[in-house]
Amino acid sequence: MSTLIVVGSLGLDTLETPFDRAERVLGGSAAYFALAAKLYTDVGIVAVVGDDFPEAHVDLLAGKGIDLSGLQREPGETFFWAGRYHYDMNARDTLETRLGVFADFRPTLPDSYRDAPYVFLANILPSLQISVQEQVRRPRLVVLDSMNLWIETQKDRLIEAMRRSNVMTINDEEARQYAGTFSLRAAARTIMEQGPRAVIIKKGEHGVILISEQGVFGAPALLLEDVKDPTGAGDSFAGGFLGYLSETGDTSFTGVKRALIHGTAVASFTVEALGAERLATLTREEVEARYSEFIEFTSFEAASISAAVG
Amino acid sequence: MSTLIVVGSLGLDTLETPFDRAERVLGGSAAYFALAAKLYTDVGIVAVVGDDFPEAHVDLLAGKGIDLSGLQREPGETFFWAGRYHYDMNARDTLETRLGVFADFRPTLPDSYRDAPYVFLANILPSLQISVQEQVRRPRLVVLDSMNLWIETQKDRLIEAMRRSNVMTINDEEARQYAGTFSLRAAARTIMEQGPRAVIIKKGEHGVILISEQGVFGAPALLLEDVKDPTGAGDSFAGGFLGYLSETGDTSFTGVKRALIHGTAVASFTVEALGAERLATLTREEVEARYSEFIEFTSFEAASISAAVG
Repeated sequence: MSTLIVVGSLGLDTLETPFDRAERVLGGSAAYFALAAKLYTDVGIVAVVGDDFPEAHVDLLAGKGIDLSGLQREPGETFFWAGRYHYDMNARDTLETRLGVFADFRPTLPDSYRDAPYVFLANILPSLQISVQEQVRRPRLVVLDSMNLWIETQKDRLIEAMRRSNVMTINDEEARQYAGTFSLRAAARTIMEQGPRAVIIKKGEHGVILISEQGVFGAPALLLEDVKDPTGAGDSFAGGFLGYLSETGDTSFTGVKRALIHGTAVASFTVEALGAERLATLTREEVEARYSEFIEFTSFEAASISAAVG
Repeated sequence: MSTLIVVGSLGLDTLETPFDRAERVLGGSAAYFALAAKLYTDVGIVAVVGDDFPEAHVDLLAGKGIDLSGLQREPGETFFWAGRYHYDMNARDTLETRLGVFADFRPTLPDSYRDAPYVFLANILPSLQISVQEQVRRPRLVVLDSMNLWIETQKDRLIEAMRRSNVMTINDEEARQYAGTFSLRAAARTIMEQGPRAVIIKKGEHGVILISEQGVFGAPALLLEDVKDPTGAGDSFAGGFLGYLSETGDTSFTGVKRALIHGTAVASFTVEALGAERLATLTREEVEARYSEFIEFTSFEAASISAAVG
């Protein structure tokens, strides 16, 4: 039995940055999430791939001990995405999207997944997220991710998915769009009226904000020397976050805050290399070191360091 | 003698936001800076106004105890700026700028300013910043602010001003522009090669980053219920920052970090009302309360709060 399950995409990505390029590498929200979460806990994937999905990618995931019993294989092409990042890593262009077998994806949970206490519904069609919510029996924590496309085209279904979720993750612009307000506090309240008891607002290189019934919490992103490729940052953040929560079982406000910093630490590695390359070799010890680095990066009431700047 | 002096603009601002409008209100970097810094220490202004500058604005500043012996009054029009903010408060349009007497501004420091240990060079023409650097005798800390316009048109003079400064404040996009790199760490190093021993990168609603020889520090902005008008946020941040440093004299890494949070706290009030309205009534006690709020907003290793989110 997996402690944590994720439903999302598994895909092949062709990535272009000003510095680098990679063709048909392992991608998709479920891949990034599971690689991150597996640093903490047992995780099972619910996703679909076509018959062109390289066995090497399956081996990588299986070799990590990620449960693939919910992986469906269908005749046809695997979900494909090609994107280009600019010098300003905050903007990207989608060059091509081919849904392939993902177009007819109907998530079916193996029985061994249905008692999973922790569930991540990555950013896919809300009706598919709902179908997973209907299949899990008594989850302790359901985290929902979504995006502008579903806010614009599937708002009713999205709200239904929100009603059955405990935590929602969403980026700042999309939270504002959903609620029709510039105030992130007000936007989070609007989201929480639908069901979630906490909202995690993702701001990319600017960090994350947690707004919950217990209070608010802000965490900057770590200041990296270089960002090579932001692909997968949000999903590996979610993987570190939910992985840590599943491991500790501590869903107190403080526990959730610590989990957010774990997510931040994991995501900081993801963006330092192309695709899921870095995530594939990442160790828990490296994440812990970066967690400590984060504490140092944000502490200001520690003992005085006497070196002068003046 | 003033402990802290600021050279910058005093002006009249006409401000439009989606919610509000104000005509010819007190504006300018020196006004925002001084009102903020005066919460902590004695501050003197070096600036110029025309004969249309309302006596009420002078009275407000003088009534706070701000030293105006460096305020020059010239025949002609006061610097005027009209700007419009959009629903997205991160973007603004300049509708009109009239330099007026500011076009011929030659900062002249009264003798009582020349021994000031703390100096803020607000964002004006680099040659004017240099002229102030030449007039102060033995400052302990000189903080320089600048912007894209001077990077593009006055880079040599700007570098000369940087050579004579201890700390530079600059926004994230401008730091990247100055150094020609996306990496803020690398950009800060490029700036520090010219003289400053620390760089404060301002990210507006996303907070600030400090990069110094002693280390790096990141602070999110406080999560406000509503942002009414971002005008003056950067200058009142600088005022809180340098005001606190002048008061404590603690320029250790920890002292500088605390000063940054004071700047953050002061700026958070500024943006909650139109123009300098809120700053004009702000008390030190209110700032201290928000400093405590900031600690709570960013702490994650405190004792566990057991209320569950799940």
